Amino acid sequence: MSDVLTQLGDILEQRKEATAEKSYVASLHAKGLNKILEKIGEEATETIIAAKDAESTGDTQDLVYETADLWFHTLVALSHLGVRPEAVVNELASRFAMSGLEEKASRTEQK
Amino acid sequence: MSDVLTQLGDILEQRKEATAEKSYVASLHAKGLNKILEKIGEEATETIIAAKDAESTGDTQDLVYETADLWFHTLVALSHLGVRPEAVVNELASRFAMSGLEEKASRTEQK
Amino acid sequence: MSDVLTQLGDILEQRKEATAEKSYVASLHAKGLNKILEKIGEEATETIIAAKDAESTGDTQDLVYETADLWFHTLVALSHLGVRPEAVVNELASRFAMSGLEEKASRTEQK
Amino acid sequence: MSDVLTQLGDILEQRKEATAEKSYVASLHAKGLNKILEKIGEEATETIIAAKDAESTGDTQDLVYETADLWFHTLVALSHLGVRPEAVVNELASRFAMSGLEEKASRTEQK
Repeated sequence: MSDVLTQLGDILEQRKEATAEKSYVASLHAKGLNKILEKIGEEATETIIAAKDAESTGDTQDLVYETADLWFHTLVALSHLGVRPEAVVNELASRFAMSGLEEKASRTEQK
Repeated sequence: MSDVLTQLGDILEQRKEATAEKSYVASLHAKGLNKILEKIGEEATETIIAAKDAESTGDTQDLVYETADLWFHTLVALSHLGVRPEAVVNELASRFAMSGLEEKASRTEQK
Repeated sequence: MSDVLTQLGDILEQRKEATAEKSYVASLHAKGLNKILEKIGEEATETIIAAKDAESTGDTQDLVYETADLWFHTLVALSHLGVRPEAVVNELASRFAMSGLEEKASRTEQK
Repeated sequence: MSDVLTQLGDILEQRKEATAEKSYVASLHAKGLNKILEKIGEEATETIIAAKDAESTGDTQDLVYETADLWFHTLVALSHLGVRPEAVVNELASRFAMSGLEEKASRTEQK
């Protein structure tokens, strides 16, 4: 799964320049930040509902799909505001003291 | 940034077994799925507010931090229900026709 | 504004029995609880965004509209699960020690 | 249940002037709009989770409680931005063509 988010960040940058007719991402940018943030709220809600249903049924497929939708729309919001996915991944890595070179997680504690 | 999410998935699995006193992640699992999902709702809201503030001020630091919090708590929810981060990353990759071996994204179109 | 919520509760009960083609409320019930709850998540997000915009611009019209949408969809969820609006209003009243007959609020403290 | 929301609006105005130590409402205003909006996101999430649990168990008590919490925090946000509860109730009434004087709802259709 290496670099999928980096690649996705590159693709999202390219799609920013596309015409809204040809690209869902471009159409979101054209509608503006509020529309993108509404999608984050929607997808967060759908993730929560899918998790409750997964708890009842044991089927986690919708949960995976909705979580991907949620992450995707957060990436579009970041892109809209000029932030790369790496910034979020680095933030997560720093909290767990991980790096590409060495795994220090087992020696640290998250606050 | 390769494999940070894979490593984080491993760490989250280890923390599931920790005592709630020593680990924030373990304490979330002990409180149950509803508590974890409440955190997702909270962090989604804080991400949306941080994005609005970033739009006004140009400062994206809080946005990165809140997005990391949001992703982190979705990973805890996935872990609680036995799902690995790779499932979400693979879902994202498949939508954009990416793989670890070759970049096909520029030749495909998202549905 | 007396009894508007009671009247709205009555209307929502009537609309439950309508055909989905003729009534938005009936169409929501036909789609099921998850769809109604997704609308609550959407409208909560839109309320939050409208409040941020109202803070910047001083224009509160969208905020009123989105809050009405949010309350409305919570009323549909309550109706779907057999709960009257009065139950929520009574809960609010009891927290502030209010009744239709006397105002005791100034003598009590919310926890 | 008449006028409970009007009374609650009055109480919320009084509490704006209270000291943060003595009043939860005053403490919210002191923390600012973002904190109030975070509470709306939290309570919307808790309402959604409570509705899912009510669907499974048939027990609607938590749902009533969480919906009251959600409405309450939207009222605090409105108060923070200088809007009365009546504005939201009037918006709901106008959509359903209701007034305090006559009930026209059964003769009208929501758009």
